[in-house]
Amino acid sequence: MLHVVSFLVLFPPFSLAFTADEVKNLTKYIFATNAYDKSLRPASNQVSPTDLKVSFNLLSINKLDELEEKLVTTAYLTLSWKDEFLTWDRTEFRINKLTLPQNWVWKPDFVLKNGFTEFKELGGSFYYVVLAFDGTLSWKPYQVFQSQCSIDVTYFPFDTQTCNIQFTMWSHYTYQVTLSSSSSSVEMDDYKVNKVWKITSTSQNIDNSGSNSIVTYTLNLKRKPGFYVGNLVTPILFLGVLNILVFIIPADAGEKMSYCVTVALGFIVFLTIISSELPANSDSTPYLSKYLQIQIFMGGIALVISAVQLRLRHKSEQQKVYTPFKLLVNAAFCKKFKAKVSCKDKATPVYEQNKEIQDMKTYDDPITYTWNEVSSAIDFVMFWIYIFVYCISTITIMTILKN
Amino acid sequence: MLHVVSFLVLFPPFSLAFTADEVKNLTKYIFATNAYDKSLRPASNQVSPTDLKVSFNLLSINKLDELEEKLVTTAYLTLSWKDEFLTWDRTEFRINKLTLPQNWVWKPDFVLKNGFTEFKELGGSFYYVVLAFDGTLSWKPYQVFQSQCSIDVTYFPFDTQTCNIQFTMWSHYTYQVTLSSSSSSVEMDDYKVNKVWKITSTSQNIDNSGSNSIVTYTLNLKRKPGFYVGNLVTPILFLGVLNILVFIIPADAGEKMSYCVTVALGFIVFLTIISSELPANSDSTPYLSKYLQIQIFMGGIALVISAVQLRLRHKSEQQKVYTPFKLLVNAAFCKKFKAKVSCKDKATPVYEQNKEIQDMKTYDDPITYTWNEVSSAIDFVMFWIYIFVYCISTITIMTILKN
Amino acid sequence: MLHVVSFLVLFPPFSLAFTADEVKNLTKYIFATNAYDKSLRPASNQVSPTDLKVSFNLLSINKLDELEEKLVTTAYLTLSWKDEFLTWDRTEFRINKLTLPQNWVWKPDFVLKNGFTEFKELGGSFYYVVLAFDGTLSWKPYQVFQSQCSIDVTYFPFDTQTCNIQFTMWSHYTYQVTLSSSSSSVEMDDYKVNKVWKITSTSQNIDNSGSNSIVTYTLNLKRKPGFYVGNLVTPILFLGVLNILVFIIPADAGEKMSYCVTVALGFIVFLTIISSELPANSDSTPYLSKYLQIQIFMGGIALVISAVQLRLRHKSEQQKVYTPFKLLVNAAFCKKFKAKVSCKDKATPVYEQNKEIQDMKTYDDPITYTWNEVSSAIDFVMFWIYIFVYCISTITIMTILKN
Amino acid sequence: MLHVVSFLVLFPPFSLAFTADEVKNLTKYIFATNAYDKSLRPASNQVSPTDLKVSFNLLSINKLDELEEKLVTTAYLTLSWKDEFLTWDRTEFRINKLTLPQNWVWKPDFVLKNGFTEFKELGGSFYYVVLAFDGTLSWKPYQVFQSQCSIDVTYFPFDTQTCNIQFTMWSHYTYQVTLSSSSSSVEMDDYKVNKVWKITSTSQNIDNSGSNSIVTYTLNLKRKPGFYVGNLVTPILFLGVLNILVFIIPADAGEKMSYCVTVALGFIVFLTIISSELPANSDSTPYLSKYLQIQIFMGGIALVISAVQLRLRHKSEQQKVYTPFKLLVNAAFCKKFKAKVSCKDKATPVYEQNKEIQDMKTYDDPITYTWNEVSSAIDFVMFWIYIFVYCISTITIMTILKN
Amino acid sequence: MLHVVSFLVLFPPFSLAFTADEVKNLTKYIFATNAYDKSLRPASNQVSPTDLKVSFNLLSINKLDELEEKLVTTAYLTLSWKDEFLTWDRTEFRINKLTLPQNWVWKPDFVLKNGFTEFKELGGSFYYVVLAFDGTLSWKPYQVFQSQCSIDVTYFPFDTQTCNIQFTMWSHYTYQVTLSSSSSSVEMDDYKVNKVWKITSTSQNIDNSGSNSIVTYTLNLKRKPGFYVGNLVTPILFLGVLNILVFIIPADAGEKMSYCVTVALGFIVFLTIISSELPANSDSTPYLSKYLQIQIFMGGIALVISAVQLRLRHKSEQQKVYTPFKLLVNAAFCKKFKAKVSCKDKATPVYEQNKEIQDMKTYDDPITYTWNEVSSAIDFVMFWIYIFVYCISTITIMTILKN
Repeated sequence: MLHVVSFLVLFPPFSLAFTADEVKNLTKYIFATNAYDKSLRPASNQVSPTDLKVSFNLLSINKLDELEEKLVTTAYLTLSWKDEFLTWDRTEFRINKLTLPQNWVWKPDFVLKNGFTEFKELGGSFYYVVLAFDGTLSWKPYQVFQSQCSIDVTYFPFDTQTCNIQFTMWSHYTYQVTLSSSSSSVEMDDYKVNKVWKITSTSQNIDNSGSNSIVTYTLNLKRKPGFYVGNLVTPILFLGVLNILVFIIPADAGEKMSYCVTVALGFIVFLTIISSELPANSDSTPYLSKYLQIQIFMGGIALVISAVQLRLRHKSEQQKVYTPFKLLVNAAFCKKFKAKVSCKDKATPVYEQNKEIQDMKTYDDPITYTWNEVSSAIDFVMFWIYIFVYCISTITIMTILKN
Repeated sequence: MLHVVSFLVLFPPFSLAFTADEVKNLTKYIFATNAYDKSLRPASNQVSPTDLKVSFNLLSINKLDELEEKLVTTAYLTLSWKDEFLTWDRTEFRINKLTLPQNWVWKPDFVLKNGFTEFKELGGSFYYVVLAFDGTLSWKPYQVFQSQCSIDVTYFPFDTQTCNIQFTMWSHYTYQVTLSSSSSSVEMDDYKVNKVWKITSTSQNIDNSGSNSIVTYTLNLKRKPGFYVGNLVTPILFLGVLNILVFIIPADAGEKMSYCVTVALGFIVFLTIISSELPANSDSTPYLSKYLQIQIFMGGIALVISAVQLRLRHKSEQQKVYTPFKLLVNAAFCKKFKAKVSCKDKATPVYEQNKEIQDMKTYDDPITYTWNEVSSAIDFVMFWIYIFVYCISTITIMTILKN
Repeated sequence: MLHVVSFLVLFPPFSLAFTADEVKNLTKYIFATNAYDKSLRPASNQVSPTDLKVSFNLLSINKLDELEEKLVTTAYLTLSWKDEFLTWDRTEFRINKLTLPQNWVWKPDFVLKNGFTEFKELGGSFYYVVLAFDGTLSWKPYQVFQSQCSIDVTYFPFDTQTCNIQFTMWSHYTYQVTLSSSSSSVEMDDYKVNKVWKITSTSQNIDNSGSNSIVTYTLNLKRKPGFYVGNLVTPILFLGVLNILVFIIPADAGEKMSYCVTVALGFIVFLTIISSELPANSDSTPYLSKYLQIQIFMGGIALVISAVQLRLRHKSEQQKVYTPFKLLVNAAFCKKFKAKVSCKDKATPVYEQNKEIQDMKTYDDPITYTWNEVSSAIDFVMFWIYIFVYCISTITIMTILKN
Repeated sequence: MLHVVSFLVLFPPFSLAFTADEVKNLTKYIFATNAYDKSLRPASNQVSPTDLKVSFNLLSINKLDELEEKLVTTAYLTLSWKDEFLTWDRTEFRINKLTLPQNWVWKPDFVLKNGFTEFKELGGSFYYVVLAFDGTLSWKPYQVFQSQCSIDVTYFPFDTQTCNIQFTMWSHYTYQVTLSSSSSSVEMDDYKVNKVWKITSTSQNIDNSGSNSIVTYTLNLKRKPGFYVGNLVTPILFLGVLNILVFIIPADAGEKMSYCVTVALGFIVFLTIISSELPANSDSTPYLSKYLQIQIFMGGIALVISAVQLRLRHKSEQQKVYTPFKLLVNAAFCKKFKAKVSCKDKATPVYEQNKEIQDMKTYDDPITYTWNEVSSAIDFVMFWIYIFVYCISTITIMTILKN
Repeated sequence: MLHVVSFLVLFPPFSLAFTADEVKNLTKYIFATNAYDKSLRPASNQVSPTDLKVSFNLLSINKLDELEEKLVTTAYLTLSWKDEFLTWDRTEFRINKLTLPQNWVWKPDFVLKNGFTEFKELGGSFYYVVLAFDGTLSWKPYQVFQSQCSIDVTYFPFDTQTCNIQFTMWSHYTYQVTLSSSSSSVEMDDYKVNKVWKITSTSQNIDNSGSNSIVTYTLNLKRKPGFYVGNLVTPILFLGVLNILVFIIPADAGEKMSYCVTVALGFIVFLTIISSELPANSDSTPYLSKYLQIQIFMGGIALVISAVQLRLRHKSEQQKVYTPFKLLVNAAFCKKFKAKVSCKDKATPVYEQNKEIQDMKTYDDPITYTWNEVSSAIDFVMFWIYIFVYCISTITIMTILKN
């Protein structure tokens, strides 16, 4: 049918010019004389199905709402079918095609099956359909479709989504109306590029096997991550780095604790932001949320350790350092080794003046351990552990997300 | 009736093929010749009720809005009834069934009784109904229903909700129209799984005993808690742990107070978040809110104690420690016992140099108590009390919520 | 009329069964033969008024929006009146009542007078009215009404509101249509309890004295305060306590100032929350806001005092304490008295070693005052003043609110 | 016309009672017999204009949306005009007036010219118009009008606004329909007082000189400032005071900097709140925003000065004080003068013990300047400068706003 | 055609007054006698196109929604075309023009092609069209258009936007209806100035070459930056200055770290604000966001450096300063040079008393480096680097934005 139309478009003055009176005569002939009944499916044999050719011309993706799981698209459908009662002899009437109001003819009850709203009639009272002499009708309803689209945010913001836009003949069974198409995918000629979603591919699937014919248009969408990388991922990675800095701040600077709490609350704020931007989905969790939860957990551990460090730091210096902490200091600073080698070096420039005291101490306990050193040792060890965990978790998440 | 329809679907060419003219004749016969009046209930005996068979095919739960207490569902109803004036002799007309515009026939005023909006007519002008030769009409209006659903958030986020979707015949009494159904629950064949709510069971209840027939579809919903556990419960438990850390931070670190206030404000922020996500319901309070209130109360107590600790800490050291605090220090650190045993040990390595002074002091007051020790003792005691209260309250709430 | 309907409901088969043909004859008789004109008020004497019986069946309060001052209710009206042109002899037609589409008959232009939207026609094209043989028509339009309701938030959250739902005959004067009712208040048989508002009483007032009849339904609502007490009042009281703690924190702890600012900002946040939840009403201020403003004012004073304390605290110790502060210290700690009594006691255990110096000082200035003591004295005095003001203001506000 | 109506209202039974049949006869006479054509302007001479009397009865101001610059009002219009084809001889028909459905007669296309939405037809299909025997028609459409209103927020929250509600005859030129009114302003009889806006005056302007007649209703509104003074202005003034306190806090208290940042961020938060409540208007800036910007600028300066103070404070004491700072200290504390007078006094009680040292110093540099003193001097000077600037700017802004 | 209309407006009483009966006769003649068919394109030769003259009268820009990329404009179209079947001999009928309801005549299906919503029919049932004796019809539908407009926020808030409003003949091919215009741009006579957007120029483009005629109105908009400069750019620049202050605060003031975190979080808050005000656009990033990201990066570096400084500062003073830091101190303070010159000067006034010690030290290590000096040196160097980077980046961004 499309070929016929385009043929007519290209060669409109097929026959000689025709007048308005001739059109009036023709419409009178096909509607009044033939007693056209627009409620009756236009097939002379009522058990042979009418074939409805459909094509979906996507104009733009208005919105993909992750929260409501709704895809809003602007598109126009091209529907064409053969009305066996609206034919005429073009040699007699010298007219190839007519432009008629849509309400004059039978129309299929073709509806959006997976919509958010009640079925709406396509087109409107001011639409026209184009009717060719062989009864082929062409109708181009322009609509804004709100279709349901199940969103999988696991890989957010590097996610791909598959959205279906499904149409069906609601009241006509397959033995009454079948669907077909001259193209094999969504028509994208007039498509206006979306700034967040890239259409990687589209497909069309027509199913005439069920009780009602169904045509499914599938849009495979890939999110362009730039925006979210700049405004969500980068700040989160940045906050993760702040977590590590905790162990650079010395415990006696009097700022460690408040630093920790501020960073921890910053993380919780970000968790709230992410959870408000994504759907409340208990079936799958975005890896980004999981990453944040790991960071929050690490922040919590850092808080506990910092509090303990403060407590140790303010222990009276008379209290001896417990053995596990001694081992930790040894591990962190190779204290034992240094004590033998470099402490000697350090001792020399002090001009032997406090030699006796030092000797005396070395006698009692060859290496002294202060709580200050313990605190520094904890900082040292935790710093490298946190750098390690941060790198591993970040690389892992990024690898998962990008694939 | 459904059986008749499916029978027709399966064997459409029951008789030989029938033509459009035959259909025209038939419609002319049943509408014009018989003077069909679509405003009249189609029962020849007007005092015997018309039986309306209903079934509710749930397609998806769009939203369960806790704040507005609104359940939005997409579904289609299958309504079928016998129109005694739309029958024909199928041997004579050779046609089994007709597809007619819905506005040609009488339709029951079947409406959503517990809706949020005014009654809306089902279907639409472009819908078709299927009419069988024995007068059985089948109508499948696809709608989005907004029904009221009383939400009980006591066990949030481990709550179960029971939502009713209630339909009634608004203007027809039971002696005019009765309801019946071939199934006993909500039809879920085409149901699309919701990501937050799991349908545990459904039921259907038809009541023809009142003045108007009522059919009630009940959905028993269970919230999938994953999302809220990750984004709400976990941060709250985390904040609860922060409350305990207060008593690890020593009073002289200069960070205790600001730490306390930050945590307390964090709690208040979360209380605000929760109260904005849940309906303003004064009849029942979520256990989660109660838990938060307990935590805030504990945070408040911690604040007061910390302030008092600071005040004690900065008391001039000349001021004597009051007796109750002495007892507290004894209880916390077994000071008396230590004084006798380990103080001796501590004294020895100091090379007897300050022995006299110590002896002298021991004479006056055998065990000295510093304000510093008092502060530590309070920290020690409160730390364990808080851990105890935290564990008890958390376990209690979790046990209540999960059951 | 309601009695007639219920009578009919209870004894539907009053006469023998009647057939659809009889109904057709009857409708033909009353509409066609009698040339029924639905645009004409159905009174044979056009200067005697038609009496419209109304009753308002409240089903639920959907929302009372304080910000927009809007009451949204779901209800159905029961309207009944006598149509003098729709009567028949029931002995002749053997029919007691008919169910007719609402658009077949004259209907009063009964509209919601104090609505938020334009007048909407009641009911809908698919509604039916019930017509009895004596011409009594019964119509039950189910609507969602959005009526204006002036909200007085002075006593929030212990407030009571009085909302009117006002209906009128818009184009018919009282000499054309009058209103009456068989009940004296709102019908609450099917009322579903609201979780925030309790209906304390309802009343109905019919005024036929003006140019147009008006019926006013009044709902007296009392807010259930539980939710707001838990989520708004308690946190505010809690913040008020934080204000008092300012004066427990010693000035040399280095946390007093930041504590103050945090609490003050917390108050401002709460002021913002409250002002966003309540309508921008310059005619009356909620007592809760006033209470908050008092607290903020007290927080501001505390800030200024704390800053001054810090400044005093860091004054060089050589600078003498000014006389007003000396008096303050005397007042707070009974310094003078202590100096004579306990300073002696304190002096003794120090083994007379620094006796001379002390004597010398006592000679120059019998009692020394340090800036530290001044700071403590200010804390002491302000602490009790704040506790006093807090208790008084809280008790006052609570007493006002609860009455 | 209004007089005629009121006359009719007051004396309805002008003639004897008239019956429904008489009304039927009359309507038949004026519509059928006279072949009334409701699409034709009801003037026998088509070049003499129809005069449309309008009056605007304001019922309430629902909302004045500053952000969208939209005024929402509920009002009803009273429109009356003479339909020369709907007249009758009242002696013959014994009827004074008729109540007719609005769709039976010609109506002017009177529309809201400065609306936010497309033109909507006034009234509705269920409205009635009142027709008097001389052809005078009276129509009272009740509407919610959304009109554009240019908001000038310069003096917010003490602003006055002038809103126009403009109606026009869209398709009828002045030589077809002219406008007139019996009143000279907006009718306020049923006006319900608004809680934010006070109507200071109203006016009406009818312009029949253009191609289409235009009637403009002007509302002069004055904001009741109470709410915004309490919730916006007061907190901002309060924050301004916090700015001044910066210079009371001594630099060595360790809280000056964090105090500054907190206050500065508080200001930015308020700037964000105000800019979100007011329209994005680049043509004029509210004085309140300007005031806030001044405060933020002062906060920024305070921050810089505080940071510099901290840096100076932590300079090694050996480093000499630079000359400009010396001058500052002299200016602030009259150091030179004191040095000569009071330093002597201070020296005496120290029992001459450190006399030599002091003499020696006095020799080298008669007056010593410490960095501590410099810091205090800066605080002193800036404190008074800030108080001065704060008072001047606050008084200036308040004076401007209140006028 | 417009000229004809204005001609008619100016000289309405062209002929003598005409009566309603004459109008009735004329309408009867052109509609009934001529059997006007409003579904037929009014051209006697159906293959010669009807020329539709369009003009777009912009009244106001209601909103340019950056997030949804939607331009909302209020405008009225003036459409005029020649209906060859609605002509009469004005000498015979003595009437120049008629005012007719819009539904009586054929209207082109002229629709907004790049709209957000489904096609809406222009005008409404209560609109009138003006018909001249030669068949020229004039129709002025007033609409609110929601058109898609691709927003480029790269230069926000100094951006310019180009928005197209595109209309097309949806069902009529160019050989049926062509478009033309008497003006060459958008009509702005009644345009109400917008407070955010300035219209720099407009243009009109008519394309009759495709299969369907398209007219495109282009609005070139320039944002008035005042509002955003005051409320967004200035605070961001202010925050940038705060970043620099970090290096004025000495490391031992105990406030450096918390200052850094507060500023960093402030930046993240602003990033969130900006990203919520602008569309999620991954194709281009506003320079302002990039600038913010640079600032955040600098803040992050400042944080790391501050933490390291704290760690260095709290190193035991016995630990030697590493060589790179020595070089840094030399670079920052010309230490070596000073040591030789000014240290001598400093030494002299100390009365040679500690000469030996100094000599001794100079022997061992001619210049001593303390960790304190290292910290100061880092501050010094970083301060100037940050000032440099801040100035360069700010000037660069501002230069880019303003052009």
